[in-house]
Amino acid sequence: MKTEYLKINKPEARNVALPVVMTIAGSDSSGGAGIEADLKTFSTFGVYGATCITALTAQNTKGVKSIEKTPRKLLAEILNANLEDFYGYENAPLKVVKTGMLTKEAIEEIVKCDIKVKFVIDPVMVSTSGSQLFDLDGIKYCVECLMKDAYLITPNLPEAKALYGLFKSPYEITNVEEFKKFVVDLQSHLLCNNLLVKGGHIPFDKEGNVSKNGSQVIDILYESESQILTLYSSEYINSENTHGTGCTLASAIAANLTNGKSLTDSVTISIDFIHKGMLQMTKLGYGNGPLNHNLTPCTQVSHLIEVGGNEVLKFDDNNTFVDYLSSHPRVKQTWQKYVEHPFVKRLAENTLPFESFFYYLKQDYHYLIIYARMHGLLASKAPTYQQTHAAATIIGEIITEIEHHKKRLKAYNVDYERDIEELKPGKACVEYCDYLLNIGQKEDFLGIKVSLAPCLHGYAEAGAYGRKLRAENPVEIPDIYEGWLNEYASDWYSKADKEGRLALNALVVDGITRIRAEELVDIFNTVSQLEIAFWNEVLDI
Amino acid sequence: MKTEYLKINKPEARNVALPVVMTIAGSDSSGGAGIEADLKTFSTFGVYGATCITALTAQNTKGVKSIEKTPRKLLAEILNANLEDFYGYENAPLKVVKTGMLTKEAIEEIVKCDIKVKFVIDPVMVSTSGSQLFDLDGIKYCVECLMKDAYLITPNLPEAKALYGLFKSPYEITNVEEFKKFVVDLQSHLLCNNLLVKGGHIPFDKEGNVSKNGSQVIDILYESESQILTLYSSEYINSENTHGTGCTLASAIAANLTNGKSLTDSVTISIDFIHKGMLQMTKLGYGNGPLNHNLTPCTQVSHLIEVGGNEVLKFDDNNTFVDYLSSHPRVKQTWQKYVEHPFVKRLAENTLPFESFFYYLKQDYHYLIIYARMHGLLASKAPTYQQTHAAATIIGEIITEIEHHKKRLKAYNVDYERDIEELKPGKACVEYCDYLLNIGQKEDFLGIKVSLAPCLHGYAEAGAYGRKLRAENPVEIPDIYEGWLNEYASDWYSKADKEGRLALNALVVDGITRIRAEELVDIFNTVSQLEIAFWNEVLDI
Repeated sequence: MKTEYLKINKPEARNVALPVVMTIAGSDSSGGAGIEADLKTFSTFGVYGATCITALTAQNTKGVKSIEKTPRKLLAEILNANLEDFYGYENAPLKVVKTGMLTKEAIEEIVKCDIKVKFVIDPVMVSTSGSQLFDLDGIKYCVECLMKDAYLITPNLPEAKALYGLFKSPYEITNVEEFKKFVVDLQSHLLCNNLLVKGGHIPFDKEGNVSKNGSQVIDILYESESQILTLYSSEYINSENTHGTGCTLASAIAANLTNGKSLTDSVTISIDFIHKGMLQMTKLGYGNGPLNHNLTPCTQVSHLIEVGGNEVLKFDDNNTFVDYLSSHPRVKQTWQKYVEHPFVKRLAENTLPFESFFYYLKQDYHYLIIYARMHGLLASKAPTYQQTHAAATIIGEIITEIEHHKKRLKAYNVDYERDIEELKPGKACVEYCDYLLNIGQKEDFLGIKVSLAPCLHGYAEAGAYGRKLRAENPVEIPDIYEGWLNEYASDWYSKADKEGRLALNALVVDGITRIRAEELVDIFNTVSQLEIAFWNEVLDI
Repeated sequence: MKTEYLKINKPEARNVALPVVMTIAGSDSSGGAGIEADLKTFSTFGVYGATCITALTAQNTKGVKSIEKTPRKLLAEILNANLEDFYGYENAPLKVVKTGMLTKEAIEEIVKCDIKVKFVIDPVMVSTSGSQLFDLDGIKYCVECLMKDAYLITPNLPEAKALYGLFKSPYEITNVEEFKKFVVDLQSHLLCNNLLVKGGHIPFDKEGNVSKNGSQVIDILYESESQILTLYSSEYINSENTHGTGCTLASAIAANLTNGKSLTDSVTISIDFIHKGMLQMTKLGYGNGPLNHNLTPCTQVSHLIEVGGNEVLKFDDNNTFVDYLSSHPRVKQTWQKYVEHPFVKRLAENTLPFESFFYYLKQDYHYLIIYARMHGLLASKAPTYQQTHAAATIIGEIITEIEHHKKRLKAYNVDYERDIEELKPGKACVEYCDYLLNIGQKEDFLGIKVSLAPCLHGYAEAGAYGRKLRAENPVEIPDIYEGWLNEYASDWYSKADKEGRLALNALVVDGITRIRAEELVDIFNTVSQLEIAFWNEVLDI
C-alpha cells in the first residue's frame, strides 16, 4: 500500500465581517428560484444569507409539482433562532429581510417579531411556470400588515395589478405616462416607502406606447419620501432562462442595500445582474431554465448605463479633470490637509527629526515598487498600444527613481538586499499599496490613472507649499531637506505635473457622466486620505 | 414630481454551461451548515446547486432548536422533479449527488431512484453544536444501501468510529500508523470506493502520536482501487468559526469533482477552502460561528501545499525547462504539429496564397497588441522591481514590432486606423488572446511566463524547420516569404530564443514540484494548441 504525504499551508487570518440578510421564502428544489436563488445571489454579492423556509416545493423548470407549508410552530422557532443570534443587539449583523413566497401564518409570525430592519418584499403570487403560490386572502393580509411601511416592494406588473385591485379597478396601461401614474397611485395605497414595478410584461415601442413588438422594457421605481420616479429602460431580452428572475432581482437588491449601496444604484446593479444571468447561461432543464447566479457582478453603476440622457461633465486646459477632483466638495478639505501636511511644513522648517525622514525614504522605496507594478496593470488595460507603450515607458522612469532611492539609502548605510527585514513596509504603506493594487485589479484604465493622480499632482502642490514656507522663513544653512523641496518644486516636476493633467484630460475628452465622475471622486479622495496616513505615520514614529 | 431616466446597457450573451450538483440534506436556518452551506459552496466553486431538503431545522450557532422531517411523499416528488429535469438523458447536467443529514425514508427514496452519478456522502450524525441528527437504525440502513459502492464517504473521527462500531469494537487511535490502519480497515467494511476520515478530533504531535497539545491535524484519504493512502497534514486551527465545517468540506469536494478535478486535488482544495473560511471570517452569532463561504477559492493545488516532501524537478542549461515542457509526453505531439505546421511548410515552398499570408499578418497584429498587454500583467506581478523593469522593456520591443507590422501592412495598402473594421480578429485569434488574458489574471509570474513561451520558442523552431525545408528544396526566385523565414531563423532570433530559455530556467532555479510542473505543462500545451489553431485558420480562409 502506497502512502502519499501532502502538507497543506495555513492560510493567513483576516477579519472579514459579513452583514446578514435573512430570506423568508419558499424552497425551490430545482435551485433556480426561492431561497436557493436568494442564497446564490447573496453569496455572489458577498453577503451572508440566513433562511426561514415558508414552504417546501417539489418543482423543476417545467412546473411546481407539490407544495408543503412549513408548520407554524417550526416557522416561529426558525425566525426566533435567527433573530436571537443575528439581531437585537448593538452592531447586530442582520441588516435586511427579503421575503418571497409567504403564507398567512408566516406573515403573522413575522409581524409578531416586529423586526426593525429594511424589508424587501417580493410579492410572489404566481410562479414563472404558472402555479398560484399565494391566495387573495393572504395577499390582503400581507398588504395590511407587512407592506405598509416596508422599505421596498418589487411586484411585476400582473402582481402590481392584483395589488391595485384590492383598492380600485385596475386599468389597462397603454403608455409610459400611464405606467408612471399607476406606480405612484399604487404606492399611495400600499403605503410602502419605495415601490418598484417591473414592466417586463408590457414592452414599449420607441414612442413609449405599449406594443407586443416593443423592444424596450421599463421598470419604474417610485421613492415616496423624495417623490422621485426613476425609469430604468433596457432592451427586451428574449431568453428561455427566466425561472426565478423575480426572486433573484429582489435578493440582489436586498444584497446591495446590505452592502450600503443606494436604492437607485441597487436597482441598476440588480437589473444588470439578472440580464447577465439570463444571457450568460446555457439552458438547464426542459422548461424555462434558471439564470446563472455565479457570474461576477458589476457593481459600478457607470459601467452599466448609457451616457446619453445623463449629465456629462467636460474639462479643458484651464479647468482640468484633476482640478475638478481635488476641488470637489467631498475632496477639498482632504486635499488641502494632504498637500499642506505638517510633514512638508517640518521639512520646510528643517524641524523634522532625521529618523522620521529616513523612515519616510524607506517607506517610499516600497511604495515606488508598487507604483511601478501599477503601471504594469495600466499597460495591460490600455485602450491603445500607444498607451500600453506610454505606461511601459513610465515604468522605466519609476525604476530610475527606485535606483536613485537605493543610492540615497546606501548613503545612510542602508543596503536593501542586506537589510530587507528592517525595511518592512509600515501599516500606512501596506494599506495604501493594497488599495492601489485592488483598484488595479477591478478598475479600468481611467480608474487606475485617477488612483495614481494624487501622488503625482499632490507632490507638486506639496513641493510648492514647502518652497513658499521656506521663502517666508528662510533656513539659514542649507539642510538635508533642501533636495526634497527642490525636487518637487522644480521645473521638471512642474512640467510632469502639467503633462499629467493634460493626459488625464485627454482620457475624458468626450466628457464623463456625473455618475462616473462621482466614482472617480471616491477613488481620488480615498487615495488622498491614504497619502495623509502615509505622512502621519512618518511623524508618529 | 421629478422623473429620472436611466438606460441600462444590454450585456453580451455567452454560453456558460453549469454542471449540476444535487444536495440531499437538512436545511440549517442559520445559513452556516446544511443545504445553505452547500449552496453557498457550490456557487463559490461555480457549479449549479439543486436541493432535496430532508428536514427543516430551526437552529442557530448555539444549537438545534427543532427538527421536522420532510414528508416522505414530498421528498420523493422533489427527487423525481430534479431527476426528470437534470438527469437520465445524453449529456444530462447532474454530475454529483452530495448527501448530508438523512432520514431512513430519504435513503429508501434515494435507493429507489437508482441514480448513477458519483455520491459524496457526509455521514452527518451529530451537529457541531452537539445535537443527535441521525439514529443508529438509520445509519445501519445507510451503510448497507447507500455507502456500499458510494464514490466517497467523509466522516470525522467520531462518525468513523460509530460506523466502525457496526462491524467491530472500536479502538483508541494513538498514532498515525494506527490511524492509517483504521481507515483502511473501515473501508474494507463499508465497501465505498473512497474514504476520507477527518482527524480534527485527534491532533498529532511532531512524532506522529496523538496528543492533546498536538498542533498537526491529519486527514486520511484511502482510495480502494489504487490502494493509495493520502495523508493531508495541516496545522491545527484554533477557531470559533466551526459551524458547518463538515458540510462545507463535503460540498466543496463534490463541487470540485463536478468541475473535473481529481479526488486528491479536490480534497486539497477543499481543506484549504474550509481553513480560509474559518480564518477569514469575523465571528457571527453567539455560539460556534459559520465559515466565510464567499471567499475566492484557490484551485491551484501547487499553491496550497508545501514543497518539502514532494518531488522536485530541476533543470540546467542543457536540459532547460522549455525542453521539459515541449518534450513532455502530453505536449510532444502537439508541439511537433505546431512547429512543423503546414503553414510553415507552404511558406518554405512558396505555395501559400498571398491572401492567407496577408490574413496572418493582420491577425498577428492583433495578437501582438495583446502580447504587449500580457507583459504589463507580467510587470505587475514581478517578484522584483528588476523583473518589472525587464517586462516593461519587452513591451517597448513588442511595440517596435507592432510599428514594423503596421508599416508592412501599409505596404499592402492596409491602414489600421482606416481599416479597423476589416481588421477584426478571427475566432482563433480571439480564443488565443482570451486564454492568455485569463492566464494573466489568475496566474503568477512564472505561469504567465510559461503562457508566453510557446510563441517565443515555437517561432524559433518553426523558422529553423522552414529554412531546412527550403535548403532541401530551394525556391528559385526569392519570394515574399523569404523575409519571414529569415527573421525567425536569424541569429538574433536564435539568441532571443536562447536567452528566453535561460531566463525561464532562472525562475525555477530552486526546482519546482512535479505538481506545479504539471499545471505549467497544461498551460504550455493549451497555448501550443492555440498556436496551431491560429495557423489552421490562416490556411482555412
